[in-house]
Amino acid sequence: MSFSRIASTFRRYGKNSPQTTANSRKRKWCSWSLWCVDVVITRNCWKMVECYAISLLLLCLFSFSALVLASSPCPITGLPLVRNISEIPQDNYGRAGLSHLTVAGSLLHGMKEVEVWLQTFSPGTYTPIHRHSCEEVFVVLKGSGTLYLATASHGKYPGKPQEHFIFANSTFHVPVNDVHQLWNTNEYEDLQVLVIISRPPVKLFAYEDWSMPHTAAKMKFPYYWDEQCYEESPKDEL
Amino acid sequence: MSFSRIASTFRRYGKNSPQTTANSRKRKWCSWSLWCVDVVITRNCWKMVECYAISLLLLCLFSFSALVLASSPCPITGLPLVRNISEIPQDNYGRAGLSHLTVAGSLLHGMKEVEVWLQTFSPGTYTPIHRHSCEEVFVVLKGSGTLYLATASHGKYPGKPQEHFIFANSTFHVPVNDVHQLWNTNEYEDLQVLVIISRPPVKLFAYEDWSMPHTAAKMKFPYYWDEQCYEESPKDEL
Repeated sequence: MSFSRIASTFRRYGKNSPQTTANSRKRKWCSWSLWCVDVVITRNCWKMVECYAISLLLLCLFSFSALVLASSPCPITGLPLVRNISEIPQDNYGRAGLSHLTVAGSLLHGMKEVEVWLQTFSPGTYTPIHRHSCEEVFVVLKGSGTLYLATASHGKYPGKPQEHFIFANSTFHVPVNDVHQLWNTNEYEDLQVLVIISRPPVKLFAYEDWSMPHTAAKMKFPYYWDEQCYEESPKDEL
Repeated sequence: MSFSRIASTFRRYGKNSPQTTANSRKRKWCSWSLWCVDVVITRNCWKMVECYAISLLLLCLFSFSALVLASSPCPITGLPLVRNISEIPQDNYGRAGLSHLTVAGSLLHGMKEVEVWLQTFSPGTYTPIHRHSCEEVFVVLKGSGTLYLATASHGKYPGKPQEHFIFANSTFHVPVNDVHQLWNTNEYEDLQVLVIISRPPVKLFAYEDWSMPHTAAKMKFPYYWDEQCYEESPKDEL
């Protein structure tokens, strides 16, 4: 096909389209597309088309993989080293009024000795009464509340806990295996805490009340926010 | 001493004191004190005095102990469980532009598996180039800066580090034994970070530059903020 034929094709698809009808834009697009096809064909560029098609396919596949990696709930690899905490996914794991996000996690980021969470409790919400055989440090970022801690929990059951008022810019730690509960007892403000635990992922023993025997406490492992990634995590020889 | 003598003493110290001079208040106080002593003696209350004296002595001793405990640099016991971070002592340990405080420490608070620091770097200040055989997680609370990280530090020397921009509300972790340095490269604002380490207290290996062999890195243990309390800490069987 000669240049003059291409030009006439262009005129045919372009000039003859009605400019004044409601469908004029659609038709213009059709004309232009057909003209392009004509141009490609007339230049005998089938090889080039093939080449472009393969490139496009590869590009699509790459984008899809990147998307899958970024949206994976268990991205132990492929994450940037420095992460914006505001962009880390959060969830309530079925507990109304809770927001949990794993800042630096065992199953998500490959930590072996420490794990850091950011948790927010809306007014009136609380953790279960529980214990775990790891150290736990809290830094209160916002709000206030009450820590219930059964320090003498080495009897048969936790017993009446001590109450500790916690407040913004305060810190406290829960000794290994002491039964405790965190409660946002401030009825107006969210309670936000940064939680640091050792020996991740956490293995938790939950109590229905403070007089439940330790032996009856219900083990939960993997914990709710570790469930999805626990099965997917690579086994570690250490 | 008879009552008449006491009475005369009282008169001497009280009535005869010049009311119009500048020292009248002081003299009045002296008179009153002496009168009190005389009254107590004349009532033959030696036993009562003894009892009061012993109580006073015990009270003084108790206050002194409490004062010593509160002002001790290594108060592993006697601290409240919930502590106001604003009231935790901070120091620069001889490094201009640094503020370090131990939020939850091994030697200060008896942690065995994790330790938490709050550190602030004024513009242009930095940590030494260093490594340690523990996990380390950072949460950037304020400001921005640069993390220099020699990820391929398993050769003979760290080599040229990668540069990572860090910013408020970001998080990152430093793998065990990777050589790194944190630098407040923001010339206007303080860089404040919450630092979480495992295996406290930290044993640090410092480098003069990125081409110093790992074998030449200088060990510093106990580290500056642990020095004072290291010798005083109780030995742990674990």
